[in-house]
Amino acid sequence: MERGLIKDIKNSVGEDVRILGRILNVRKLSDVVFWQVQDFTGAIQVVWEKEAESKVGDAVEIKGQVRADERAKGGCEVLGQSAKVISSSVEELPFDLSKKDLNLQLTTLLDGRALSLRHPKVQAIFRLYDILLEGYCAAMREEGFVGIKTPKILEAASEGGANFFKIKYFDKNAYLAQSPQLYKQIMVGVFERVFEVGSVFRAEPHFTTRHVNEIIMLDAEMGFIESFEDVMAMLNKILVKVAGHINAKGQEYLKLYGAELVVPAKIPQIKLAELKEIIKKQYKYDVPETTDLDPEGERLASRWAKEEHNSDWLFVTHYPMKFRPFYTMPDANNRDEAAGFDLLYKGVELVTGSQRIHLYKDLVAAMKAKNVKPDGLEFYLDVFKFAMPPHGGWGMGSERFIQQLLGLASVKEAVLFPRDVKRLSP
Amino acid sequence: MERGLIKDIKNSVGEDVRILGRILNVRKLSDVVFWQVQDFTGAIQVVWEKEAESKVGDAVEIKGQVRADERAKGGCEVLGQSAKVISSSVEELPFDLSKKDLNLQLTTLLDGRALSLRHPKVQAIFRLYDILLEGYCAAMREEGFVGIKTPKILEAASEGGANFFKIKYFDKNAYLAQSPQLYKQIMVGVFERVFEVGSVFRAEPHFTTRHVNEIIMLDAEMGFIESFEDVMAMLNKILVKVAGHINAKGQEYLKLYGAELVVPAKIPQIKLAELKEIIKKQYKYDVPETTDLDPEGERLASRWAKEEHNSDWLFVTHYPMKFRPFYTMPDANNRDEAAGFDLLYKGVELVTGSQRIHLYKDLVAAMKAKNVKPDGLEFYLDVFKFAMPPHGGWGMGSERFIQQLLGLASVKEAVLFPRDVKRLSP
Repeated sequence: MERGLIKDIKNSVGEDVRILGRILNVRKLSDVVFWQVQDFTGAIQVVWEKEAESKVGDAVEIKGQVRADERAKGGCEVLGQSAKVISSSVEELPFDLSKKDLNLQLTTLLDGRALSLRHPKVQAIFRLYDILLEGYCAAMREEGFVGIKTPKILEAASEGGANFFKIKYFDKNAYLAQSPQLYKQIMVGVFERVFEVGSVFRAEPHFTTRHVNEIIMLDAEMGFIESFEDVMAMLNKILVKVAGHINAKGQEYLKLYGAELVVPAKIPQIKLAELKEIIKKQYKYDVPETTDLDPEGERLASRWAKEEHNSDWLFVTHYPMKFRPFYTMPDANNRDEAAGFDLLYKGVELVTGSQRIHLYKDLVAAMKAKNVKPDGLEFYLDVFKFAMPPHGGWGMGSERFIQQLLGLASVKEAVLFPRDVKRLSP
Repeated sequence: MERGLIKDIKNSVGEDVRILGRILNVRKLSDVVFWQVQDFTGAIQVVWEKEAESKVGDAVEIKGQVRADERAKGGCEVLGQSAKVISSSVEELPFDLSKKDLNLQLTTLLDGRALSLRHPKVQAIFRLYDILLEGYCAAMREEGFVGIKTPKILEAASEGGANFFKIKYFDKNAYLAQSPQLYKQIMVGVFERVFEVGSVFRAEPHFTTRHVNEIIMLDAEMGFIESFEDVMAMLNKILVKVAGHINAKGQEYLKLYGAELVVPAKIPQIKLAELKEIIKKQYKYDVPETTDLDPEGERLASRWAKEEHNSDWLFVTHYPMKFRPFYTMPDANNRDEAAGFDLLYKGVELVTGSQRIHLYKDLVAAMKAKNVKPDGLEFYLDVFKFAMPPHGGWGMGSERFIQQLLGLASVKEAVLFPRDVKRLSP
């Protein structure tokens, strides 16, 4: 008998089926037993009127008959006839996966990751995560961006930053990429529009709810722009499409978290200096001079965007150049401010973007001004001798997107197997 | 005036357009000059009846009028009215990008990668590469696989192999992932079917045309299989879909290489032992005892598949267990042979796959037999205590796929910025 997929069972009312899957939970009433059984296509209720030996978590083969039942999810259930255990637990599960909510401490959740991931609410996070990546790639390609894969092992700690992981590369030293920045800019000279979904590694000794040391960045870079406003407009367009995709394919998972995803056709935008004024006046908070926008500032900025524009999203533009990397284009009207932006989503910075310097002599000067040594960066610097068009782009944290969308307490909940200062395993 | 995209210009015959792009080449006749101009949507011919100052490689803005011309590619061209240089080269290009073929030595091609990538024939490789990734992800999701992203920084050099790159992770040592093997198996317990497109790193000191040290693997893992034949059948199905996608979207790029992609509905398969016999008898070549199938053996195997089955593809099954990693399921009838396969494509191993051991006690025994220490692998080993279903999967080299498809002399030509023993830059 062929395997029946759970998603198709509604089309087989009255017929016999053979299901393969995992028992999510067992509910015993006086005369019947209900199993919730899941395969890769969905979950269904199996009703036993006779004894059936199996326990929560087992991988089983079930034969039974499909019957309509309007009380059941999906409008049908399976009347179990026989069950065979394909694979069973040899130890007690360390926590109860059949509860509606796991309610575990973050450490316990992550230490037992291989099993906690099996909980439907945790599964939902990563179903949505994949829908996000699918939607991002589709939207980017629709807009003519070519997907690229750039190297993660680098000769030089690029971008002038610290916080690179060092690796031993045969007889040389090398570094793990913090971002595909330099390579995606080079690729603008090739395809004009490129995007990347790739791993980046940051040796930042953070202990926050919004940082991990290995993430997947959603990068983009586009040529022939007139200003960074073109980059923002493109990002806005992409996010609208991504939201459409997530809402179309991810409803059942969003519902588990009571989450809603709305992206305005025109995300509101404001200059950082103005925003700081508003935050000071309206919320009596002084953003410290030493940072661009601290976490509390970001939170209040988003509060303002919600109150003033009814938007979960806010573009903040014109950050001081001193807080931006060397390749950032300064604003033509005020060279102390960057021709760039951050995008805040529900109180957290989700995206950073800007126009980039595209003329060789300007780039050399900018590196000198920021004290970035060109050693090991010649491959990047040199390409600007060869007719690079004006360009700009962004980097968006994929895990943080899901964290904010679902209101997860820590970004680590949106990473399958997160890496932080203390955590290298599982 | 709005920017006109080159792909849409055929719909604007008789109208004025404004194009932004790069001059691919310039051809001067006695009274007219032809430019080939490329933007991210395509390339078009611009005809100048008057003088226009620009040189090959420049990023330009062109205004002109569209006119039908059946001699031109796409059936139309632009009669140039004015050109403005947006960004120009400040140095001579190191090689002539306007030639039909670059014909550079591999070292020169890769040293000048940022520029050699701009050549249309080189661009075509990476257009196809992205179409491959797009097609793979689409096919996998259609079959119910969930895309996952597993960590690339590992606590332990897993899989019992050598050839791991070592990294300094804060105050600890760590390793770069050679494959997502252990994590994708864990994820079978969560989603039953998972796939990953991700970076893997191999510290193998190879100097061949088919190895690089950082690649993108196309991985898959699926549960509730009955044997490794189910894995082969799924892979076959995926490859048929991927080929359909590449043929639909990549024709113009395939043509540049005279390449054709055909995947049989049923890829032929043969046991390794039988294959060795045939190679010996038919081609008078003895595959050395010390390897599973050496490069010459793979070449002859594919020759046989072509001659005997008219197939570029060949599944070779039942490799000796001694050449397979510890998690491989032995064949039920002969435990010295693996319940797995390699897939050869045009003379090269493209995919390796197998059924995996899914019972805890068998896995412990297999690790012991292969002398793989469980230290640091407990997170993996432990999950097999909890009802893992029978499962299997594969890993496919994405760059090698493109190399073989296009007949590239080295796999490095199919990597944007390849990493090998000697090359860490660009």
